[in-house]
Order: sequence, then structure tokens, then C-alpha cells
Amino acid sequence: MSQPFRATDPATGESLEPSFFESTAEEVDAVARAAASAFAPYAALPADRRSAFLRAIGEQLQALGDPLLERARRETALPRPRLEGERTRTVNQARLFADVVDEGSWVDARIDRAQPQRQPAPKPDLRRMLVPLGPVAVFGSSNFPLAFSVAGGDTVSALAAGCPVVVKAHPAHPGTSELAARAVRAAARATDMPDGVFGVVHGPSPAVGQALVAHPAIQAVAFTGSFRGGTALAQAAARRAQPVPVFAEMGSANPVFVLPEALATRGQAVADVLAASVTLGCGQFCTSPGLTLVAPSPAAEAFVGRLGAKLAEAPAGTMVHAGIKRAYDAELAAVAALPGVRVASRSAGRGANPATEAQPALLLADAATMAAHQRLAEEIYGPVTVAVPFSSGDEMVAAARRLHGHLTATLFATERDLAENRELVAVLAGKAGRLVLNGVPTGVEVTHAMHHGGPWPATTDPRATSVGTAAILRFARPVCYQDFPDAALPEELRDRNPRGIFRLVDGRLTRDSP
Amino acid sequence: MSQPFRATDPATGESLEPSFFESTAEEVDAVARAAASAFAPYAALPADRRSAFLRAIGEQLQALGDPLLERARRETALPRPRLEGERTRTVNQARLFADVVDEGSWVDARIDRAQPQRQPAPKPDLRRMLVPLGPVAVFGSSNFPLAFSVAGGDTVSALAAGCPVVVKAHPAHPGTSELAARAVRAAARATDMPDGVFGVVHGPSPAVGQALVAHPAIQAVAFTGSFRGGTALAQAAARRAQPVPVFAEMGSANPVFVLPEALATRGQAVADVLAASVTLGCGQFCTSPGLTLVAPSPAAEAFVGRLGAKLAEAPAGTMVHAGIKRAYDAELAAVAALPGVRVASRSAGRGANPATEAQPALLLADAATMAAHQRLAEEIYGPVTVAVPFSSGDEMVAAARRLHGHLTATLFATERDLAENRELVAVLAGKAGRLVLNGVPTGVEVTHAMHHGGPWPATTDPRATSVGTAAILRFARPVCYQDFPDAALPEELRDRNPRGIFRLVDGRLTRDSP
Repeated sequence: MSQPFRATDPATGESLEPSFFESTAEEVDAVARAAASAFAPYAALPADRRSAFLRAIGEQLQALGDPLLERARRETALPRPRLEGERTRTVNQARLFADVVDEGSWVDARIDRAQPQRQPAPKPDLRRMLVPLGPVAVFGSSNFPLAFSVAGGDTVSALAAGCPVVVKAHPAHPGTSELAARAVRAAARATDMPDGVFGVVHGPSPAVGQALVAHPAIQAVAFTGSFRGGTALAQAAARRAQPVPVFAEMGSANPVFVLPEALATRGQAVADVLAASVTLGCGQFCTSPGLTLVAPSPAAEAFVGRLGAKLAEAPAGTMVHAGIKRAYDAELAAVAALPGVRVASRSAGRGANPATEAQPALLLADAATMAAHQRLAEEIYGPVTVAVPFSSGDEMVAAARRLHGHLTATLFATERDLAENRELVAVLAGKAGRLVLNGVPTGVEVTHAMHHGGPWPATTDPRATSVGTAAILRFARPVCYQDFPDAALPEELRDRNPRGIFRLVDGRLTRDSP
Repeated sequence: MSQPFRATDPATGESLEPSFFESTAEEVDAVARAAASAFAPYAALPADRRSAFLRAIGEQLQALGDPLLERARRETALPRPRLEGERTRTVNQARLFADVVDEGSWVDARIDRAQPQRQPAPKPDLRRMLVPLGPVAVFGSSNFPLAFSVAGGDTVSALAAGCPVVVKAHPAHPGTSELAARAVRAAARATDMPDGVFGVVHGPSPAVGQALVAHPAIQAVAFTGSFRGGTALAQAAARRAQPVPVFAEMGSANPVFVLPEALATRGQAVADVLAASVTLGCGQFCTSPGLTLVAPSPAAEAFVGRLGAKLAEAPAGTMVHAGIKRAYDAELAAVAALPGVRVASRSAGRGANPATEAQPALLLADAATMAAHQRLAEEIYGPVTVAVPFSSGDEMVAAARRLHGHLTATLFATERDLAENRELVAVLAGKAGRLVLNGVPTGVEVTHAMHHGGPWPATTDPRATSVGTAAILRFARPVCYQDFPDAALPEELRDRNPRGIFRLVDGRLTRDSP
């Protein structure tokens, strides 16, 4: 029997109409099978059909208009301007992947021409390119109801690669999810896509997602969420008769290093911009800066004081659901209870609803405490950062060496600081997917050069990004054709290069015909 | 206590001097720690230092001269000309990766320039490139004592990426492994590489490899061998506190499709070339054609008869060790015992040594039997192929759809056959890493366009190749720098492009400065 469930307005606690129904095992099976049926016809479509679909998704999302934003606001309590920005990002993201598909060079085509006279044996003609993996399961995240959800980056990058998509909608925003799904379905109809190219399953129970990941039709999994959730899916995928790749982005503490000259010359300004980043979106960003390492400096104490004051005076925020707020309070209390850690400041602000309000906070620990407790360098999801003042630069580099993987690492540094801390920068490049200089890690551009990923436990695959055009590479694999005649080859590999893409021909990157 | 072990000459059964010693847990730990210590200094070396190391490996391998080939012959019973060819391939492979490192574009550099005036928020400067993952564990295979062993493709592609390597030598050829390791060590000394950049562990016990894969220093694993071995390592890697990627190439049945017009016009010639491929190297190739699907044709019976006759008259071969020969006989007997399967022919030849001799064979089954027993489409490692004549083309496409993943799929087909079997070709592109037309799958060129991989169970990661220059991509991950000044960036990302590599600048592939 299918179980009904409803979204709750985090700001009021009100249960929102209508009811949604948890997908049954039979429904999950049917959607996954439909995706499997759609795979061959969808993968075979010419690039311009696929890009037209992606552009139509953007148009249909935009066409949903105010009701989409209003429903998202009711289900997440995220402010309207933020949701408008997120919609713009989501629409632009679909368009960007359409551009990538149209341009076409992403398939990494390589041609090595035959050498029939080669001794001792002739060299065959070899031509390879990337082809889609198969149906992809996408797990919507709670914190970005549009950009990392039903029609978000994982979905459009998988569709761009030629893979049908089955989304497991996040149960905290089922109405927003259904609206976005309608937009994708309308786009599929408008551009005459194969049935089953896109499907959605719903439900608060982990069994729905587990059934989806276990389904033989699914060939890859993309997830944004907690370490526990991502790890569970990775383990489920590894237990399958046929294991499949899981690209789980599981968040991180995103360490920030404030170096001596930056502290001395603009410590207060850094504290202000950092406090704003910690509290942005109520700390509900994968890249929220949860750990602040402060270089030895006479200005360190003033910096920590200012950071604490800013966080103390910040208003309470409203988290997207009550479970996340409970986890924030519990994790903050657990870390604060570690020996050597204290709550340096905490906002006394009140939110709209006690069940979802989250008060920004600053925790304080010394270097020895951080060395003793790896937990200090792990994420507390919410508007808090742990400040750790160091008494020597070497000690700070040693702390950096002990870090696990993070999505980002940030440096506030002058040119001189950078020049004097080359080793620190090199260590951080081994620990994080993105190094930010004199900016904040929150705010992830959707571009070609973005890398939103990082070594474990930030993600399950350090080679993958979930943001930016390289995200498409997660969902494709190479196929090599040996000695095929031109007419039997995909367009991308034919002699005259009808798509005009860049190809590696005999080791030389060119758009020319071989 | 360290256990001594020796290699055995497969052709004579003679135990070969000297004794080698299984690496203890302490030794595995020491080698892995040394690799971890070498990582930062090795990764920081300029490209020309890394390529010099790779070229020196090629030179030192060549300089080992006759003793290397002679020891490999004693340990594997592979013929000298084959080993000479394999050495050439191994040396050229090291040089090819040196070229890739020197050329430099493999790092997939991407630059998105800042737009300080952008509204509503400035766009930062983003620059990303691939950097090495960390120390890599490489498992030498039994069937290529040079090209897929200590100084083989996995090792040189990982070193090219900037990763230190720890090899688990295959216990069947410890002497060859030690000689090759000496060459790599000499190359490291000659080019002044950091201590620990390359290490070897030995031993017949699975515990050695398990300890290596479990070691926290190891960040990726490359393996060529059996399905059981690859699966065990993938599971061990997934159980780690920090899971790491495993690139296991586990072989496959490599289906061959012989289409009607090819059968009618040159069936005998196809049978001859196929029989030669089945028996090449005593069937000890990952790409050995173990399954032959024969299209409906009046010429089918004659084709199968000729194939059987050729395999019956083929001499017995000598497998690389007695365990593999026992497995060959046992698996062949088990498949032959399936209802509907019969041994159509088997060579009566005798090898040099009953403990390692393998007689080529042809098994025969009908389409219904193949549909009923997935085992028929799985690898029997050795000089055998299972022929399955079909009574309709649709039935053959249906059989292709039921295939799991394979490294290769081969078509013998005329242009007309190809035109009339487009669906079959499309299905096979979804099942195999490489499609071969009118050739044999054995023989894997080391080039840019080669793909030696395939969907599970051929490998644990369908996106990876273990042969060809794309093999380097297994061992690298992206790092993105946001708003870093030119002087603090890696050379590959600096404005004036000092390395002259191709970069994606604002979405446009170019060697120009931005």
C-alpha cells in the first residue's frame, strides 16, 4: 500500500496540501524499466535533439512562473530572492549543458589512423569516443530545491550525456519536485523525447531510494546530501550483482585559513565576510565554512572576537526541515562538549518557528584540541564555524596535513602571506577540490572550470564534479571502433568531422579531417 | 616470519633458483609509507623530470637485455619472439607516456576568466586542472610478465600522472618482476627521483595484496586478472575507512559475430583466423575470443566444422602455471557438462609438461542453450571458444542483448552485413569497450584511441581503460583555483601558458593566452 505524506512549511509548521504518495516497489520498478527502454532510442538521438530537450527544460521551468517559487518558499522557507537566483541558475545550467552538447567536443574523440604497411604487423584504424552509461538515478538534495533537485545539475548533466534519468525527489519538497517534474515532462513532450527518458519517484522512506539504486536498470547514481546518506547508497550500489558507480557529494567542513598579514591588515573585514558566509542560507550549503584556522598574529584575538560578535548578533535562521535543525543543535552540542572546546558565542535570535530555527554560533578550540579530535574538522551542518588559533605556522601546516578531504579550502592572504605559505597551499591542493583565495567558499559558479567535488569523505569519487560542465563526464564511458568503415561510424568519428568537434588525431588535437 | 617461495618452469616443472620471500605485513607497511612520503615531492616535479624518469625506465628495461627475456621464458614458458615483442611494447609504452607528460594537455586545463562587473555579483576567476591522486597499488598479471606487470602499463600511467607506485608482483614470475623492478629503481636513481616513488611487494598469499589495498597510504588500485581476484580487491577497497577507486580489468568472453555474407563468401578464412586467435598465447589473453555466434547461413555448418578442425589440429600449449591449466580443464569440463553443450572437437596434442599443457577445444551449443545458461557467455580462460549457430538474425540480436559487459566484441561482416545489422552493432556498442571489424580481438594497440575496458563484469569501472594514453586519467582528479594570482598558480594555469598546452578558455579550446 502506498503511504501518503505531506510537506511541512518550516516557517510555520503547517502541513501543506496536497498529499503525495510514497512510490511502491512496483512503481520504482516500472519507472526504472521505462528508463531502460528509453535508453537506446534516447542515446541514438542526434545532438541537436538532445540539446533542444535541455533548452526546453529551461524554458518550461521558467514558464512555471510564480507558483514554482511560491511552493518552494512554502516548502523550504528559503527567501524569494534566493529562490529566484536559484531558478536562474537552474535554467542557465540546462542551457549550458545544451551548449556543451551542441559544441560536441566533450565526447573526447580520438582517432589513430591505420598503418597497413607497419612491421611486424599492420596497425589497425582505431577511433574512440564517449557514449552514455545508461539510466542514472538522481537524488534531490534538501538545500537546493531547484538547482540540486529534480531538474538540477545532476539531471541535466546526465540527460546531456545521453542517459535517461530517474529522480528520487527529496521528501521535504515534494510539491516543488512535482512542479519541476512537470516542466521536464512538458519539455520531453514538446521535443518528442522517448517515453521513459525522465521519471520521478517519491517518498520519505529510505527503502524507495534503496530500491532505485538496487534496480538492475540503473547504471550510475548521483547524490547530494549527508555523509551517512551517501555512504549508504555507495554500499547499496557495491552490493548489487552488477556494481555501479555512485557519485555522492557529501559535504564537508570547508576549512578557512586566515594568514598573518591578512589578519593584521584587514582582520575585521575578513571576520565580517566570513560571518556572512557562515550564516548564508542558514549554513545550509555544502561549501559552508565550518572551520576557521587562524594564523599566529597579534591580531588573531581581535579577529576571533569580531567573528564571534558578528555571529552572536546574526539573526536566527529557518532551516529547511525540523530534522536538520535537531541535527544542528545535537551536533553543535556534541562538539562543544569535547574537552578543550567552548562555545565562544551564540546568537540569541529567535526564528519563525522553534522547530526549525537555528542560532548561529562560534566554537573555539586550541590547536592541541583540534589535533586530538578529528570531529572538529568534520561538518556540523548549519550556521556555525569552529575557530582554532595557532601559535605557529608549522603547527597550522601540520593541522592541514591531518585534514581529510573537503570540497573547498579557503585562504585569506596577502601576496606576501601566499609567498610565505607555499607549502600550506600545496598541502591544501591535496585535500580540497577547490581552493578559494580572499573570497568565500559559498557561491559555486556553474562554468567549465568549476570543480565541486573533492577527496573522500567530501565525495565518494575524487575524480568527479557535480557542478560545471565536467559533470557530464560522470555519465559516459569510452567505446573504441577498430577498422570500421566511415559509414558505419558515429558522426563524431567520421573522417570529414561533420560535427566540427575537436578530436585527438594521431595524438594531435585538431578540428581538421585526418 | 617471511615465507620463501620459488617460481616453477611451466614447461619442465623445475623449481627455479633463487628463492624469493613473501613480504611481511611490516614490509608492506614500510613500502606503502615510503610511497606516501614520495608523493608530495614527486607530484611537485616539473613535467620534464617525470618524463625523463619514464624514458629512463624504457632504457633500463631494454638494458636488462637477454637475461630478462630468458628469465621470463623460464617463468612463463612464453616463446622468446613473443617476449621480445612484449618487451618492445613495454618500452614503447613508457616512452608514449613520457610523450603525453611532455605534451601536457592531458591535465584538461580549464580557465574561466573573471567578470568583475557582472551583476548581481562579480564572477570570480576559476582555473582547474588534473592533479595526481596519490600512491597507486598495481597488481601484476600472470599473462603478460612485462607489459602488464612490474613496469607495465598500469605502472607507467600512474607514474606519468604523478603518483608513486607500489607493485604487488605476480608470484608466478618473481624473478622477472625483480629484474624489471631493478630497471625501474635504476631509472629512479639515474633521474634523481624521490625515495619511495616505486616499490615492490612479493608473495603468493592473498594476504599481501589485501594488506596493500587496505593500507591508508594507497589512493587507487589497478589490477589485471580474474573476476574473483578483481572482485575481492574491489570489496577490500570498499571496506576501507576511506574507500578508494579500484580499476580491475577482469577479462571477458569477447564474443565474435560471424554474419551471413561473410560466412558465405569467406567462412573458411574466418574460421582459420579465428582459430589462430583462440589459440594465440595458449588462449591466455584478456581479449581471447571465447564465444562465437554464427549467423543463419547455409555456410554455417562448414564454418563450424572448419573451426573445429583447426582447433583439433592445433598443438597443445603450455600455460603460465599449473593452477591456470587446472582451472582451464575444470571450467571447460563444467561448461561441456551443461545440458545442450557438447565438445565438438578437442586437440589431442601433448605439451611439454602434463601439469601445464592445455588442449585447444571447440564447444558447441544451440541458441536455446545459450539463452538458458549465462555461463556460456562468460570466460573460460584458455584456448577454447563456444560456437553457437543461430537460426535467425533476431535471435542473434536477442542473444547480444542478454550479454553482460565484455572488453571486446568482434564482427566478421561484409559492407552489406553491416548495413543489414545496424541494430546488432548498436547493441554491441552498449556491451563492449571495443568493437573489432574483420579482425581478431587479440592484439591491443597502445595508442591514444585504444580502449581496453568495458562494462561490468569486464571491469569494475566502465569509464576506465588500462591500455592507451587515456589510462593516465584513472589516477588524477581535478583541483580548481579561485582568484589566485598568476605567480601562485601551477604553470599549466598561468596566463601566458608557458607549457603551450591546449586549454579550455571561456569554453574555447586553445593554446593561446587568455
